[in-house]
Amino acid sequence: MRLLTLRLSNGEKTETVAVRQDGETLIEIDGFTDVGELLRSEDWETTARAANGATHALDGADLAAVVPSPGKIICVGHNYRNHIKEMGREIPEHPTLFAKYTESLIGPNDDLALPQESDTVDWEAELAVVIGKKGRRISEADAASHIAGYSVLNDVSMRDYQFRTIQWLQGKTWEKSTPFGPALVTQDEFSAGPLMTSAVDGEIQQSTPTGDLVFTPEFLVSYISTIITLNPGDVIATGTPGGVGHAQDPKRYLQEGQVLVTTIEGLGRLSNRVVKEA
Amino acid sequence: MRLLTLRLSNGEKTETVAVRQDGETLIEIDGFTDVGELLRSEDWETTARAANGATHALDGADLAAVVPSPGKIICVGHNYRNHIKEMGREIPEHPTLFAKYTESLIGPNDDLALPQESDTVDWEAELAVVIGKKGRRISEADAASHIAGYSVLNDVSMRDYQFRTIQWLQGKTWEKSTPFGPALVTQDEFSAGPLMTSAVDGEIQQSTPTGDLVFTPEFLVSYISTIITLNPGDVIATGTPGGVGHAQDPKRYLQEGQVLVTTIEGLGRLSNRVVKEA
Repeated sequence: MRLLTLRLSNGEKTETVAVRQDGETLIEIDGFTDVGELLRSEDWETTARAANGATHALDGADLAAVVPSPGKIICVGHNYRNHIKEMGREIPEHPTLFAKYTESLIGPNDDLALPQESDTVDWEAELAVVIGKKGRRISEADAASHIAGYSVLNDVSMRDYQFRTIQWLQGKTWEKSTPFGPALVTQDEFSAGPLMTSAVDGEIQQSTPTGDLVFTPEFLVSYISTIITLNPGDVIATGTPGGVGHAQDPKRYLQEGQVLVTTIEGLGRLSNRVVKEA
Repeated sequence: MRLLTLRLSNGEKTETVAVRQDGETLIEIDGFTDVGELLRSEDWETTARAANGATHALDGADLAAVVPSPGKIICVGHNYRNHIKEMGREIPEHPTLFAKYTESLIGPNDDLALPQESDTVDWEAELAVVIGKKGRRISEADAASHIAGYSVLNDVSMRDYQFRTIQWLQGKTWEKSTPFGPALVTQDEFSAGPLMTSAVDGEIQQSTPTGDLVFTPEFLVSYISTIITLNPGDVIATGTPGGVGHAQDPKRYLQEGQVLVTTIEGLGRLSNRVVKEA
């Protein structure tokens, strides 16, 4: 099953609604303003499968970030062997965790805000795990039952701010800079380890199977939930593989007008035009 | 004006309500479940000053974290000269920022959860800034108008997890480990640079005027809002001074049964018993 958050505009104001995608059609899941709110309800999967609300064409749909306001966005660094190597680091014993705030999220086809303050804006294609069931100290064996599904996220990073201090947060959470979606794909339709890519104006920058993760989604759910309760709608961005612009020679960063495309086979595609903020 | 979030229990379930403190009395601000919800309303200050709902005694009141669910908690590291020195670092050019999730917050008199996984749980008394008005790219001169007021927070830190990797988040956001409150004190009742202390079982560990901050609240509001919109109820924990247990010789950490007391003159007092999780 594929779940999305659709924007509906009546000219005056924009609202959102959770929808199920059946082929080329989006079906409203009545009573839920977005996929995050849906996941926070009991029996969300049954509700979503049974929904038969108003329909819309997928083609041309205005999509929001699939979970627009997660309670937590937990990001993982140093989680692909080839990215660890390009950044000059060792394979880690523990996952490196940092945060991102919800104001940084944008929809799968929204403009990506290039801030006036940074000219070192870089891409990081990532597999996103979305939590479907609350839990603390979840065992690795039970972790799959707490995962609602998977999606695509690009952890766009302002490298100058990221490395201003030893903590990365300020380079990772710029307003309207993190594309997320298009859909939450439930586990029954997810094939393990699909190919993930990012491309700038059609030129492939990253291309790695997500099966190359050092720490798997199930391990990360278990590890993070040791520290803090994971709640429905929480998002884990599992880290990026090699091919970021900052590690290239010469270094490359996003420029105004470029289009950043991020894909994961079977999950979907983000396509975001880079637009300089006024 | 002093604003707090009061828990009300009818035996079966616990609800919360925003209250104004007048001397030893708490007055309900009808229609607002907590101080965060109040701050997100228009004219919150007028509403709060005019409130005349049901009253309760401050003495014995069951208080929640003053803002129980901030949209963002932004923490600052390396912001007091004496703590920078004890951690062996240089005075920084830019503030070091990291995050904490809301599940780590507890009320001013709640038990502080000592997790079974860490035996290096340390204190960090901090002045908390609470945002009262939305803004992006706020100038330092305008910053005061975006601050609702100040409170006390202890950024309790699991040092082993904090230093497992180069990113601190996993040592900073353990469940039910961050006391926050008791009150939001509006700026008109706040004297700049009051003395802040932490004590363990009555023995003073930290004692520094908050006027020794390297980066002031106004600077931090301006700096952070360059990156991302600050919204009402967002919290900035402005960093801790010298005297943390990890920097003592020998190192000292919180033990089961100890009481951690954190105070800021004129703002209030947190008193939290350390209780080992089952």
